[in-house]
Amino acid sequence: MISIRTDLALEARELYKQRQKREVPGVKVDVIDKGEVKVTKVSITSQEGAKNMGKPVGNYITIEAPGLRERDRATEDTASHALKEQLRELINLDNQTKILVIGMGNWNVTPDALGPRVTSKLMVTRHLMKIMPDKVERGLRSVSALAPGVLGITGMETSEIVQGTVEKTRPDVIIAIDALASRNMDRISTTIQLADTGISPGSGVGNKRLALNKEILGVPVIAIGVPTVIDAATLASDTLDHLLSAMAKQAKEGSAIYNILSDMDKGEKVRLINEVASPYIKHLMVTPKEIDTIIDDVAKVISRGINMALHDNVNDTGDIQYFMH
Amino acid sequence: MISIRTDLALEARELYKQRQKREVPGVKVDVIDKGEVKVTKVSITSQEGAKNMGKPVGNYITIEAPGLRERDRATEDTASHALKEQLRELINLDNQTKILVIGMGNWNVTPDALGPRVTSKLMVTRHLMKIMPDKVERGLRSVSALAPGVLGITGMETSEIVQGTVEKTRPDVIIAIDALASRNMDRISTTIQLADTGISPGSGVGNKRLALNKEILGVPVIAIGVPTVIDAATLASDTLDHLLSAMAKQAKEGSAIYNILSDMDKGEKVRLINEVASPYIKHLMVTPKEIDTIIDDVAKVISRGINMALHDNVNDTGDIQYFMH
Amino acid sequence: MISIRTDLALEARELYKQRQKREVPGVKVDVIDKGEVKVTKVSITSQEGAKNMGKPVGNYITIEAPGLRERDRATEDTASHALKEQLRELINLDNQTKILVIGMGNWNVTPDALGPRVTSKLMVTRHLMKIMPDKVERGLRSVSALAPGVLGITGMETSEIVQGTVEKTRPDVIIAIDALASRNMDRISTTIQLADTGISPGSGVGNKRLALNKEILGVPVIAIGVPTVIDAATLASDTLDHLLSAMAKQAKEGSAIYNILSDMDKGEKVRLINEVASPYIKHLMVTPKEIDTIIDDVAKVISRGINMALHDNVNDTGDIQYFMH
Amino acid sequence: MISIRTDLALEARELYKQRQKREVPGVKVDVIDKGEVKVTKVSITSQEGAKNMGKPVGNYITIEAPGLRERDRATEDTASHALKEQLRELINLDNQTKILVIGMGNWNVTPDALGPRVTSKLMVTRHLMKIMPDKVERGLRSVSALAPGVLGITGMETSEIVQGTVEKTRPDVIIAIDALASRNMDRISTTIQLADTGISPGSGVGNKRLALNKEILGVPVIAIGVPTVIDAATLASDTLDHLLSAMAKQAKEGSAIYNILSDMDKGEKVRLINEVASPYIKHLMVTPKEIDTIIDDVAKVISRGINMALHDNVNDTGDIQYFMH
Repeated sequence: MISIRTDLALEARELYKQRQKREVPGVKVDVIDKGEVKVTKVSITSQEGAKNMGKPVGNYITIEAPGLRERDRATEDTASHALKEQLRELINLDNQTKILVIGMGNWNVTPDALGPRVTSKLMVTRHLMKIMPDKVERGLRSVSALAPGVLGITGMETSEIVQGTVEKTRPDVIIAIDALASRNMDRISTTIQLADTGISPGSGVGNKRLALNKEILGVPVIAIGVPTVIDAATLASDTLDHLLSAMAKQAKEGSAIYNILSDMDKGEKVRLINEVASPYIKHLMVTPKEIDTIIDDVAKVISRGINMALHDNVNDTGDIQYFMH
Repeated sequence: MISIRTDLALEARELYKQRQKREVPGVKVDVIDKGEVKVTKVSITSQEGAKNMGKPVGNYITIEAPGLRERDRATEDTASHALKEQLRELINLDNQTKILVIGMGNWNVTPDALGPRVTSKLMVTRHLMKIMPDKVERGLRSVSALAPGVLGITGMETSEIVQGTVEKTRPDVIIAIDALASRNMDRISTTIQLADTGISPGSGVGNKRLALNKEILGVPVIAIGVPTVIDAATLASDTLDHLLSAMAKQAKEGSAIYNILSDMDKGEKVRLINEVASPYIKHLMVTPKEIDTIIDDVAKVISRGINMALHDNVNDTGDIQYFMH
Repeated sequence: MISIRTDLALEARELYKQRQKREVPGVKVDVIDKGEVKVTKVSITSQEGAKNMGKPVGNYITIEAPGLRERDRATEDTASHALKEQLRELINLDNQTKILVIGMGNWNVTPDALGPRVTSKLMVTRHLMKIMPDKVERGLRSVSALAPGVLGITGMETSEIVQGTVEKTRPDVIIAIDALASRNMDRISTTIQLADTGISPGSGVGNKRLALNKEILGVPVIAIGVPTVIDAATLASDTLDHLLSAMAKQAKEGSAIYNILSDMDKGEKVRLINEVASPYIKHLMVTPKEIDTIIDDVAKVISRGINMALHDNVNDTGDIQYFMH
Repeated sequence: MISIRTDLALEARELYKQRQKREVPGVKVDVIDKGEVKVTKVSITSQEGAKNMGKPVGNYITIEAPGLRERDRATEDTASHALKEQLRELINLDNQTKILVIGMGNWNVTPDALGPRVTSKLMVTRHLMKIMPDKVERGLRSVSALAPGVLGITGMETSEIVQGTVEKTRPDVIIAIDALASRNMDRISTTIQLADTGISPGSGVGNKRLALNKEILGVPVIAIGVPTVIDAATLASDTLDHLLSAMAKQAKEGSAIYNILSDMDKGEKVRLINEVASPYIKHLMVTPKEIDTIIDDVAKVISRGINMALHDNVNDTGDIQYFMH
């Protein structure tokens, strides 16, 4: 069986089901439909499930809100609230909980800039709690935030900077925001994944970054990810599918190549395309044309959800009540 | 015959030759090899040539500098100088010539931001010539610059803003900078095209922007363009070719679909892919991952070339001699 | 009498009253107090008033909202609504009215970037009205927007670009947004001035930019301005006042210099400081430390007010209902 | 004696000499004149010197290059080379030396963004040394870089993040870049100070940030600072001086206030102004109007100097030889 890497547990499960024609063993799935927003909880409960999904044991929550693409304000509010609720379920907050938010990614590459843009919009309060604890209104928790950059910018592993910072500042829980790749264009900027397993670097060759998870950092790590790029090989594969079905209407089926191509599942096709076209496409990225606006909008949705989850006095519309003069 | 739209005269000619196995009638080609930089002059000399090429009669000069991709400083200097020389051949400058440079494109979309970034680096002098003509050093010419934005930003056609500005400020010649699409990944940021035909909006449906050319504006318009995006359909087509040749090694040739696909030329394939996959890919753009840095580097090369071409006192390394305190 | 230039009609009137101990002849003043927001209408009704105020005959409306400084969301909403109402009073909109918004100023100098940032947040619709008039929802009006840059960036007068654009696109009314200088630090980002007189360049030496007004452009011009910088000479003068009153407590009054300084009014002092310290301070600007955030916030308040004023379907919270997919 | 805080050792010494009419005891001064660039070495050699100067014992090197203000390219090159030489004198580099560069400051406040802009232009190599030591050309050293942000952005002390990162990545020496305040407008962007004492937070109230120095971090810390803002109180004081000397020509000398003001030295005047006007001016910053361009230019000068100092294969013009494809 060919193992296909995808950042989304939802997609991993779909791929498995598509191929094996059954639910993934060792995986439990729960769906909550909230109108504009659909929440799916995929729990990997055993090592068998982890192997089948290519992901560690843990909880993966996906918030799907197609309306985010149309920049619909009501959907944005609903998505922020859904994120708040799911975050609060994953994290056991008490009044003293100290949270460090890590904005992963490269601020110079628009689709990879999601993490840094989210941290720039957070209500950071840790320094206020320390300096004037009595003046800080009730309901605020100690929040710190860091966008450590990427290896090419700092020369250092993200995990080295984060580990050092964690040891010095001793947060109780970490939230790490990252941009993901999706195999499906429709997920770009409309799907938010939370996972209580932290961030695991690719197990394959070429990615030696260390994990951000409880094992390494000593405190729970909640990962929040949003697809912002499409894999170029996936794009080529999808287009090929469109092409083949269009041609099938005119051409005789049953030919050798046609059969080979239509028998392959998407995972195999992407792998094959990667193999033959890799030197050509590996430096490319495929994004929506309006990616800059998209990243800004999603960063707002996510930062609001986090602000509402971590602080009690953030008002109901998800807007920040400014607390500093 | 299927007409393929490409922004580069060089590619249009290659496509024609590939299909017709001969040089394009009505087109004259001249190649100057300068080591790291290759200059090709394609002159469309007759209406027949224009029809064959899908472009108006005029001169198209292409500067190819693959080294620009490696950010090689010597190549950057050579490319800037080549641009200077070709610009000076296309424009008949005297001391009194007044030039308006238009930076086309959308500054919010990185690969489309080339024009605005170039105009932001120009030695703009028109206001100095008017206010203190005697104080301006010899060798400076009157240069003005405008980045008018795009339809979605202003609600106005670029040509409306440019026409109005031209009528009020009366330049003698216009240089318009624009980002182009290429069918070839290797051309991204390494090929500069100059044309004395101005900028003609696509003749097809959906593009109603008016031309920027001598006919409309009353003064000569030199277009400078650099490919910064790859057409998504081209990417899919190229990947398909890679895929087919890889499969051909294992699979029986002669099958129906295989024959159809391998007989098509690239132009037809791209057209077909566009037809079937258009709703899927039309909102996507394919760019190198490091597009932000690339645009900055190319904008520097082009602005230096223009500064050296339009002013006499810009020093030999292409750097700006600052003339204002 | 020494004439002091100030961008705000409110300040001009205060200065006159302070010196002359009476209301300005030829000027009518109306104050509406709305709690967090105070609206003052200063109407210059005669040439005598114009001379006294150093401003053309017309209506000057000032919205003062000190709470904007604390980034209070409720005050922001109230200020946006006040702007909407005052704009609608100044402009006679019908369904067919076409509006061009001009974002004046230099996007490279933070405190001068207000205009461009406002235009970047507007609901621009003119191109949609033309292409698919039937598809555009009721209540939208034709809005176009342009940030023409400044003389140092384009080499062209703002008025040249605007005049040309107006002639080609034929709007019915123009709104021009500009950053102002104030003599009072407390006004920075908390005061919005509307004027139906357009924008008149300084009458003094060194400012030769032409006006943007009905006389020049043929259509009414509404100016919206917000103070974003303090005059360095004003800062010095104010500090000097603080210093003198502090010293007066210890030192003998009646000394020559003391008398001279305390007898001068603020206008004279600023003029004198400008005279003696001009080469020193003319290249400086004085802004609040958090100017970048301030400009963004105020740009949001103003763009919301304009969006609500010009379109009928913008919802009550002042947020944009996205109307394009 | 009133102690005046200034970021520049040069200014501290000038103030002392001005008041005490003699060289500072415990301080050694050396001046090297290189034409466009003047290098002054102030060594504080004893605790007495440290007390007199208000700075720790150590070496303070100032590179003064007034031509940087005119953006003169030759001066920029000379300044970069001077910085390289002085850095190499302060740091004992061998082939294995690992350097961490810290870009201090707030990237959202233009004059405070110098540090982050410098780190963004560095040749960062640490990750390459680790992954492919044999492929890295000779002459490259292990360089990492971090812009940790400021307390208001991260909620964490700069020193917490830096200490943690240092413990995890074990550099041999640290270079910390910071924007400084000057008492003299002419120093803005034209003076570069190096110090082998690291960065000490203000000793006064309100500044509780911890030091970045050898004592705290365990490795030597070289501080590089450039003045980018003027103290508002200094501006007021300077303007007052201009005013007084202008008035002195007309007015009778010998009056009480006049005598008081002209007898005070600048330090006392600034302190007095700060005392009386502090609530008014403490939130203000005074910068040149073209601060954005200035910061970019200086960041280039400094990053080139550092790149040349830390790597051997950076070419003579100070430009980066790109070493990665």
